[in-house]
Amino acid sequence: MRAIVYTAAGGPEVIALREVETPAPRAGELRVRVAATALNRADVIQRLGAYPAPPGVAKDVPGLEFSGVVDAVGAGVDAGWLGREVCGIAGGGTYAEYVCVNEGCVFDRPEGVGLIESAAIAEAFVTAHDALVTLGGAREGSAVLVHAVGSGVGVAVVQIARAMGARVIGTARTESKRARAMSYGLEAAVDGGEFEPLVRERFASGADVIVDFVGANYLAANVRLLAARGRLIVVGLLGGSQGEIDLGLLLRKRARLEGTVLRSRSDAEKSLAVRAFCEWAAPHWKTGALRPVIDRVMTLEQAAEAQVAMSANENFGKIVLRV
Amino acid sequence: MRAIVYTAAGGPEVIALREVETPAPRAGELRVRVAATALNRADVIQRLGAYPAPPGVAKDVPGLEFSGVVDAVGAGVDAGWLGREVCGIAGGGTYAEYVCVNEGCVFDRPEGVGLIESAAIAEAFVTAHDALVTLGGAREGSAVLVHAVGSGVGVAVVQIARAMGARVIGTARTESKRARAMSYGLEAAVDGGEFEPLVRERFASGADVIVDFVGANYLAANVRLLAARGRLIVVGLLGGSQGEIDLGLLLRKRARLEGTVLRSRSDAEKSLAVRAFCEWAAPHWKTGALRPVIDRVMTLEQAAEAQVAMSANENFGKIVLRV
Repeated sequence: MRAIVYTAAGGPEVIALREVETPAPRAGELRVRVAATALNRADVIQRLGAYPAPPGVAKDVPGLEFSGVVDAVGAGVDAGWLGREVCGIAGGGTYAEYVCVNEGCVFDRPEGVGLIESAAIAEAFVTAHDALVTLGGAREGSAVLVHAVGSGVGVAVVQIARAMGARVIGTARTESKRARAMSYGLEAAVDGGEFEPLVRERFASGADVIVDFVGANYLAANVRLLAARGRLIVVGLLGGSQGEIDLGLLLRKRARLEGTVLRSRSDAEKSLAVRAFCEWAAPHWKTGALRPVIDRVMTLEQAAEAQVAMSANENFGKIVLRV
Repeated sequence: MRAIVYTAAGGPEVIALREVETPAPRAGELRVRVAATALNRADVIQRLGAYPAPPGVAKDVPGLEFSGVVDAVGAGVDAGWLGREVCGIAGGGTYAEYVCVNEGCVFDRPEGVGLIESAAIAEAFVTAHDALVTLGGAREGSAVLVHAVGSGVGVAVVQIARAMGARVIGTARTESKRARAMSYGLEAAVDGGEFEPLVRERFASGADVIVDFVGANYLAANVRLLAARGRLIVVGLLGGSQGEIDLGLLLRKRARLEGTVLRSRSDAEKSLAVRAFCEWAAPHWKTGALRPVIDRVMTLEQAAEAQVAMSANENFGKIVLRV
């Protein structure tokens, strides 16, 4: 099969389209003929050599999510999967014509979302739901702050929060991203460099949940903005990892800081996160409250160009690669 | 009634024994003729002016826990409480002959523990159970690290952890405290200045739960020592509040940092924490797995001397004041 391979650690020049062996599904896995994959920051971090693939996953083929058609099943997997149009998450290997993943990490593409577009659902929405709801405890009426709201996960957080009746403020670095994010139901959008006064004014009691992709740079302000019993869920570290924290504030607020990643989880844990999202989301796909947000659709051959665009923060929502 | 009053913010010299008005129970409250109270760090912090009493609580009379006999009940409280020997937690005001507290913050003194000794149970054990189990998620087999293991809460954490079959390492600054803590079932005790190598050696996968009273000084080492999905519960800040944290480690481990205090909670929340502890503890009082650890019993008149001893970290376990 054709696949994108990282030939070494480095810049976009290490990205090559190669002929590699088509994987065969192991017990508990199914194989998907990939229709499309979508980009994640982790793809670039892996390319730079800082985020090796977890055990049992293709080492050199990047990619954490996909849409496609099930074309083979491993031992113990229901043959009823064959031919179904699905999307899902993987530990790696989705920049390819075929990928094998655990059955629990796959779900039927929602009605009303096309097969290519469905490639932009799984990683963003499962991560967002897990961070906002499972870890963050958001519910109707919660005051939610989302940083980097123009990212795929960021705008998924906004959609999920709005669908459950939470209030949401988002930060983004450019005016055009803030304007686009507002159309998804944000109460307010503000520059990432100066969000504290506005959030304080709008959320008089503080933020019940903060979903953060920035890390160290925003840590002190985030802790200051948390409500009593608020939760700061850190999903990314675009602004560095070594931060200062006022533990006194954390105590007085009885607040929580939690770090999370999806990729390194066991299949069983991923499956739980996928099921939790799918169960909650089912009615919301039908009303249109949820929809994948796609910046552009490119091709597998354009993987290098696509990663350069993401690294430059050009995109609003997901960059999809048609396979 | 007689009560200890803080006449101003300051050193032990602001502590005075005064005649004050005996409180009357409000709706939902009962009044306890106090047999004894016990010291907490918060008493000293309040004396220094840095920890004002929460609303609805005596401003100038310190004290967060007590044992005694119920002698009056407010509206809506079962008269069956009258005459019962109880212990419990309060938002303040227990350095006194009488204290009024919400019914949910009181429980019957355990069989086999004397009335005076019971003054050393509530704050230490409820805080310990809440931090270790409710927030920390400790269970049979968990690897637990407890700092300042000679404190009242510290040694309560050890007892609870051992009673549920967890492994425990404790830190303390003096050899004699470490030796005494070992007798409560610690797997190892180590100096607070150099705990990292020993914990790493004993807990190969890291600590599942860390209960910390030190804060900033230990923060970096604590985060390094956490296991995957480990939880660091910060209960005190003896070592400062402004700390450095490696968010990258927190993400990779999917770890959690949470601050907690008992005193500022609503009566309903305190009641939940009290009930959770009492329900879990009932069988363990009978077997002797739990017992209040008392450093010394003094009198209300000796409150200043007692606080000086606690501030000098002289005590192992609780300092009790007979009223």
